[in-house]
Amino acid sequence: MIKVVVPFRLKNPKVRLSLFMSEKERRELALSMLLDVVKALEESGVEVELTVVLSEVDEDEVEEVKERLEGMNFSWKVETDPRDLNEVVNDRLEEKVAVIVSDLPLLNGTVLTKFFGVKADVVLAPGRRGGTNMMLVRRLSRGFRASYHYGSFAKHLSLAKVAGLKVEVFDSFFAGCDVDTPDDLLDVMLYAPNSETGRCLRRMGFRVALEKNPRLYRLRVRR
Amino acid sequence: MIKVVVPFRLKNPKVRLSLFMSEKERRELALSMLLDVVKALEESGVEVELTVVLSEVDEDEVEEVKERLEGMNFSWKVETDPRDLNEVVNDRLEEKVAVIVSDLPLLNGTVLTKFFGVKADVVLAPGRRGGTNMMLVRRLSRGFRASYHYGSFAKHLSLAKVAGLKVEVFDSFFAGCDVDTPDDLLDVMLYAPNSETGRCLRRMGFRVALEKNPRLYRLRVRR
Repeated sequence: MIKVVVPFRLKNPKVRLSLFMSEKERRELALSMLLDVVKALEESGVEVELTVVLSEVDEDEVEEVKERLEGMNFSWKVETDPRDLNEVVNDRLEEKVAVIVSDLPLLNGTVLTKFFGVKADVVLAPGRRGGTNMMLVRRLSRGFRASYHYGSFAKHLSLAKVAGLKVEVFDSFFAGCDVDTPDDLLDVMLYAPNSETGRCLRRMGFRVALEKNPRLYRLRVRR
Repeated sequence: MIKVVVPFRLKNPKVRLSLFMSEKERRELALSMLLDVVKALEESGVEVELTVVLSEVDEDEVEEVKERLEGMNFSWKVETDPRDLNEVVNDRLEEKVAVIVSDLPLLNGTVLTKFFGVKADVVLAPGRRGGTNMMLVRRLSRGFRASYHYGSFAKHLSLAKVAGLKVEVFDSFFAGCDVDTPDDLLDVMLYAPNSETGRCLRRMGFRVALEKNPRLYRLRVRR
């Protein structure tokens, strides 16, 4: 059994997309992405115990998240913790814990089954712009801790090595696509059109369009 | 033995970066990325026969590319072919051929060894914005052909299935990072700082900087 921690923020999420979506829409997007991660966990067939840690303490928001998770056929709970992400994670870091970010709509059960199967003390999945999208800790050692924000992948790799832990890098395109920019939304629509997030984006009126300039041979997300 | 085709363009490459780099610099960037792909091939330990297909017929440009490839300890040649990318590739598509795009600075020997080891008729590695970054064809069948531009990954997947070929998706973050935007350059500087491309970007004065806005916890490439 593996404990899975998914930190989650529902208050004004995904600010880099605020030119393209209202706050209400970005909340809907964040919830859809969370649901895709949860569904991938379900599909993986691995026995997990999920804790979604909500950074807000607002009761309505807790209910909103719980509503989405209803019906999942594995053990889950929602906690609230308003502290910084690093404190949230480090307080829950122990052996046999995985930390997965909540914005991975391309994730699926096959990728997660492989991830949970990697035999190393610490397994790290790199994300776009330097983040750690997934982290699996099988063995803890003094000195290893979560250190998110600003290029966390390199920091985690180095912290694990210094702590004398055996580290493996989990090389996955589908786990690597966290969502911050319009280009990332394009990848959702192309690679996971039927995910919760893909359907959410289509409901909002987003679609894939060809770039007008033929020299560029480029696809874009438009509304 | 696997024949590897790498299509390459040296004339005004990477136009989406033209706000940030001169044409001369973008040429230098393109050559550095090509060299990273070639070095990864060398590191893979797999017996390959490389053909770099240059879209220009300019003699100086052929020489410029050849100069960079000097000293590689495997069989390589440079051809010129000014036709559209699809014609360039389809004319060279046969059994035991791999097509690799030239802008994958995060690629390394380990990833390529795995890629060449996948047992399927057609192996496809997805790229950002829907492209096919690597394609390995072990068996050909009527109807399967290269169809680049505008979301080629989905097209190749579907063409291979229709042609009755066994397809595998090669899921790799490092093979998935093709370079078109400043965010892609950030990934080069974070994940492959000592690659030819990483060093080329540093020589040009690019560096990784923290976003000023603390709410965003974001890294950027700056000059």
